[in-house]
Amino acid sequence: MRFCSHCGSSSLEFRIPEGDTLPRHVCASCAEIHYQNPKIVVGCLPEWEGRVLLCRRAIEPRHGLWTLPAGFLENGETVVAGAERETLEEASARVDVGELYALISLPQINQVYMMFRARLTDLDFGPGPESLEVRLFDEAEIPWERIAFRTISRTLRNFFLDRKLGHFPTRVSSLVRPAARSLAPDHSAAA
Amino acid sequence: MRFCSHCGSSSLEFRIPEGDTLPRHVCASCAEIHYQNPKIVVGCLPEWEGRVLLCRRAIEPRHGLWTLPAGFLENGETVVAGAERETLEEASARVDVGELYALISLPQINQVYMMFRARLTDLDFGPGPESLEVRLFDEAEIPWERIAFRTISRTLRNFFLDRKLGHFPTRVSSLVRPAARSLAPDHSAAA
Repeated sequence: MRFCSHCGSSSLEFRIPEGDTLPRHVCASCAEIHYQNPKIVVGCLPEWEGRVLLCRRAIEPRHGLWTLPAGFLENGETVVAGAERETLEEASARVDVGELYALISLPQINQVYMMFRARLTDLDFGPGPESLEVRLFDEAEIPWERIAFRTISRTLRNFFLDRKLGHFPTRVSSLVRPAARSLAPDHSAAA
Repeated sequence: MRFCSHCGSSSLEFRIPEGDTLPRHVCASCAEIHYQNPKIVVGCLPEWEGRVLLCRRAIEPRHGLWTLPAGFLENGETVVAGAERETLEEASARVDVGELYALISLPQINQVYMMFRARLTDLDFGPGPESLEVRLFDEAEIPWERIAFRTISRTLRNFFLDRKLGHFPTRVSSLVRPAARSLAPDHSAAA
């Protein structure tokens, strides 16, 4: 953010507004406060007779890797409608959306994932413009080394575990990237 | 949005970008696309020995009415950390956050509520700057006619029902305001 979207001024400050506790982009010209908040990613884990539908990404990031259908929730949309829409867009698939299964916070990139269990209503699916390929996988076939995102591999791993237990609680968790490793040699071990 | 926050131009268009499906604010000068997405409201339903903690609002909207502690999730924050922070800010209360209980979409105002069940860790609570009063309520004492938001009354009503059943599933729902009634006289009934 370099200019105020309200008045066009370039006099933006990053400071804690009066009565607030966190720094915000504040316009020194018109006093507008520009709040920024996490975005919601909604998606489905679509099932058909014990198999799970995955999409191979036709776009960056992670072009060529496999994922569950998911994307940003839009204004004016419920979370369930968003999960249905993303499944239709990425896999041309229609689903009955079931229970919320995974709620994963990604605080470092300001996203919250919401993945729903879902049942395909038919087998008439195929790649949308953002997918190279869409297919059903048995548990044993899942390409674990070629899953696009940690949110997706976590959701899938929990799903297959919970399926063995016969119970699918809503799983709330967070994913934090480890700090980048220092490239400097570690002398502590040699000391 | 009247000016591009990227280049300061006032040449903003509201149109569907190439490859997209929905209209966005697009800058005709620098081509930046300004996406707008729903915000997350996180909060708690704090319990103590069968009673529930409510806060009476010291701010608009709904000044003077009762609510559960809740507010916008901040960048860099997990949903659980946000629910804890809001409970501390509004009720000066510390909680152990439990399971996600209510997930309510409000598509007309681009918000998604996430309310967690929680246990107060002690009775050292009181009004923060945004509350007039904070207290514990038995079910029979809940001021149903003076609850600030429908999301909150729905969450509380479901909670007391589910408590009788001894089971608290994560409840996913949406709230849509009815269309404003026409002020024109309705001649259809007289026809």
